[in-house]
Amino acid sequence: MSTTLRLLVEYDGAGFAGWAAQPGRRTCEGELSAALATVLRQPVALRVAGRTDAGVHATGQVVSLPVTGAPEPRRLLRSLAGVLPGDIAVRDVAVAPDGFDARADAASRAYEYRVLTGAPSPLRRERVLHHPGRLDPDLLAAGAALVVGRHDFTAFTPTDTQHVFFHRTVLACAWEARGDELVLCIEADAFLRHMVRVLVGTFLMVGRGRWSPDRLAALLEGAPRPAAGPTAPAHPLTLVGVRYPG
Amino acid sequence: MSTTLRLLVEYDGAGFAGWAAQPGRRTCEGELSAALATVLRQPVALRVAGRTDAGVHATGQVVSLPVTGAPEPRRLLRSLAGVLPGDIAVRDVAVAPDGFDARADAASRAYEYRVLTGAPSPLRRERVLHHPGRLDPDLLAAGAALVVGRHDFTAFTPTDTQHVFFHRTVLACAWEARGDELVLCIEADAFLRHMVRVLVGTFLMVGRGRWSPDRLAALLEGAPRPAAGPTAPAHPLTLVGVRYPG
Repeated sequence: MSTTLRLLVEYDGAGFAGWAAQPGRRTCEGELSAALATVLRQPVALRVAGRTDAGVHATGQVVSLPVTGAPEPRRLLRSLAGVLPGDIAVRDVAVAPDGFDARADAASRAYEYRVLTGAPSPLRRERVLHHPGRLDPDLLAAGAALVVGRHDFTAFTPTDTQHVFFHRTVLACAWEARGDELVLCIEADAFLRHMVRVLVGTFLMVGRGRWSPDRLAALLEGAPRPAAGPTAPAHPLTLVGVRYPG
Repeated sequence: MSTTLRLLVEYDGAGFAGWAAQPGRRTCEGELSAALATVLRQPVALRVAGRTDAGVHATGQVVSLPVTGAPEPRRLLRSLAGVLPGDIAVRDVAVAPDGFDARADAASRAYEYRVLTGAPSPLRRERVLHHPGRLDPDLLAAGAALVVGRHDFTAFTPTDTQHVFFHRTVLACAWEARGDELVLCIEADAFLRHMVRVLVGTFLMVGRGRWSPDRLAALLEGAPRPAAGPTAPAHPLTLVGVRYPG
């Protein structure tokens, strides 16, 4: 008999060359596949909701895999904790409906990007962008509101792309004040590579008053990559959740 | 003319052999003194509210120092940010009343100790104690309540001690559920060396049902060190604040 498993995965992206397995590189997919193969004693092929880049973290990554047999979820959870390295963990295991595919079935992905504008914070330095100086909250809010909806995000992904379609639907996008941080909370049906980071680089130009929100609006109609802002660093970005229908 | 400065300091304890300067070791006091001497162009002597151990963090450490001249606080803050390494930062500078002493004048110190009881969390692994398995919240609460008040904490500090008096007054002590963590929040007039960590090691014996709260109560009357629980690790402990009269 076979079962489809659904895993909730967290990782610290600092030590990984991103999610996707690459020969000779340490990746999340590589580490998790090896641990699952050891514990389940069978080869595994993972499906993942969000193919995060090098340095990007996840608290709410979702992975699915078909397995032979019917492993007991709580026991599998304990075994994986004993085998995985400290920077990646499976936080929940559930049996999913047959044929469940974490990637194809996902309705949306949600990311957060943390910006600290005041004094530097040593305890958060590996999780936030330290950007001293004023960011206008009204301009940030205006910029974020423009991004909601279906747009052509060509300007927000590298030119040397493997993507074929550049339209994505942003379901929610807002800058949230959280203590002394400003956090971009963004949810979309799917994301282009680097899309959140180029959006952040562009929002910061708007928030500093360098670029008008109108200029951001024009970028959302298929402008070329160089017209948008710089790519913000990866370490303040976290995949926080994935939504499935029903 | 001379001025007394009061600094609010944050650090990631992982890279330091504790607060106090020691020959040949990297310490918080050593790094901060060197940065202040460079920026202020004068030798400095620091007074500190909490002499934290190796590996212990601070978000609310308070330091005072007398300086010759009248440095402008905002400018000093910016200069220090340019000189200090990434794992220690001065988050606020203020001019204090003449003779202010961060150590002698402190009315109380507050610490937090974070425990994660569920699945491991890679993104928090350097800040929490991962202690899988059930801790009874009622037993933890009963234990914490017993510690409030003036007691002889001899059992909660190493035998080879430099302390002379072992009575301390705990002003507040409670385990707080914060998301999937249990956080010990404790405030006292002053702490003995390792006191919070031995308290945590003892609370965990109580929370697991191994030791009764009565046994903890007996420890607070000057029992010897071996009668208390093990010393919990340093990395989940943070000095979060210092209170001054007025």
